Amino acid sequence: MNTATTIEELRNERNQIKGIVGLVPTMGYLHPGHISLVEKARSECDYVIVSIFVNPTQFAPSEDLSSYPRDLQQDFKYLEEAGTDLVWTPTDQIMYPHGYQTWITVDQLTQPLEGQFRPEHFRGVTTIVAKLFNVVQPQCAYFGQKDAQQAAVIQRMIIDLDFPINMVVCPIIREADNLAMSSRNAYLSDAQRKAATILSKSLFAAHRLYEEGERNATVLKESISQIVQSEPLANLQYVSCADPLSLQEVDKITSGALLSMAVYIGKTRLIDNILLK
Amino acid sequence: MNTATTIEELRNERNQIKGIVGLVPTMGYLHPGHISLVEKARSECDYVIVSIFVNPTQFAPSEDLSSYPRDLQQDFKYLEEAGTDLVWTPTDQIMYPHGYQTWITVDQLTQPLEGQFRPEHFRGVTTIVAKLFNVVQPQCAYFGQKDAQQAAVIQRMIIDLDFPINMVVCPIIREADNLAMSSRNAYLSDAQRKAATILSKSLFAAHRLYEEGERNATVLKESISQIVQSEPLANLQYVSCADPLSLQEVDKITSGALLSMAVYIGKTRLIDNILLK
Repeated sequence: MNTATTIEELRNERNQIKGIVGLVPTMGYLHPGHISLVEKARSECDYVIVSIFVNPTQFAPSEDLSSYPRDLQQDFKYLEEAGTDLVWTPTDQIMYPHGYQTWITVDQLTQPLEGQFRPEHFRGVTTIVAKLFNVVQPQCAYFGQKDAQQAAVIQRMIIDLDFPINMVVCPIIREADNLAMSSRNAYLSDAQRKAATILSKSLFAAHRLYEEGERNATVLKESISQIVQSEPLANLQYVSCADPLSLQEVDKITSGALLSMAVYIGKTRLIDNILLK
Repeated sequence: MNTATTIEELRNERNQIKGIVGLVPTMGYLHPGHISLVEKARSECDYVIVSIFVNPTQFAPSEDLSSYPRDLQQDFKYLEEAGTDLVWTPTDQIMYPHGYQTWITVDQLTQPLEGQFRPEHFRGVTTIVAKLFNVVQPQCAYFGQKDAQQAAVIQRMIIDLDFPINMVVCPIIREADNLAMSSRNAYLSDAQRKAATILSKSLFAAHRLYEEGERNATVLKESISQIVQSEPLANLQYVSCADPLSLQEVDKITSGALLSMAVYIGKTRLIDNILLK
């Protein structure tokens, strides 16, 4: 497994690669959700590059940038086992040198859901992803459905800015008790970890209602809200039933919807979602 | 000379090209200034692509989008003579399809000079140039020093977003009487055309002062202002003496400066500049 830190090192490696390059952008502290992306890339590409970069510009000052979990040694071990060809670990200084001042914004798609509570977040995400794209020049890029709005926003950026990149969105990977895997799960105490199952429990219950024929979005959201309220350690920030493309709230579900939510478990903010087809 | 309209057509051509590709982005109505860029690209690249696209998002509603001069037939003739390999003429609908919502902004460099009077202009410029870069994937891109701030802003975007592109800025090409060549010169009546020489006259006079040892920016700007005021048809919008990298105004010139100006001749807004070394 090759490694690179600077952009020059990455480009020197990249220039020697022929065939299809797949990029898996991550913030490290890798879990089986990330590894599923690497495995998907491995199955589709000639050369798999994983970037590890905790991108400061997608965290608000109030958020958890400084405490975000990191374990590069373990990450490298997992990535080597998964058949990664190259790991790129740039520094803040490399990605945002002195005088940095260029930003990419996606207008409408970033407003609802996460955007209501993390107004600068997606600007940081789209900017860093575009930079990763321009350095790595992959033909394919892999993202998780766990961050459903992020996937929609990045897909929009790829289309709008004409990046010649095929975006692949991979399913959420869950723990045995259905908690969606997330690096932030590491923040949870034992009691909080148990309480955190309330996200998937409530989503799956709403999914059952949908499969039984319920198409009223308010009913589904009320169901989720009530189940989350039954958990004393959980604090629902939002629940949404939105059009999967526009991310605008729907009243009645006619052709699929994205059910999504953010919940505080103590100080830890968790998100989860499920696609109603 | 090949031509392309859609992105797919362009990419089909592009995929067959080996060697160094040079891009000259233009808004058409080509003059010898544009052709000097094509010739520079021709001398440095294996394959020269010229785009012609009057980019609507860099015009404010009050500006001259609808009247911007166009003559594709003449443009093609000039480009063929200059040895262009491929002309790309996308439509508004191709570049900004329904649902388009992604923008690139360069923060500080876009604030002074033109940015004071054209607040949305550079957002449109950087966005379309990034799109052209992503479609054409050139190794080199050619821009004119006539639009000095545009060149600085695009160079900043290339650096910040890690585009693997070498930007080449070519000197201003002037008419026999030193009027900087511009597609907008076509708007001028005969009397206005004569009056328009006041821009270069005033800049050159300030340049002479500089060469004689004057380093006080206010003195140089006052000199320009007085010369422009002597021309009844001219209306000075701004004159600036700025650091060539930051574009911030300087008081005393210590290591070069960009002298730049915008002047209305009737309803036609003209810009010009000179680098003091």
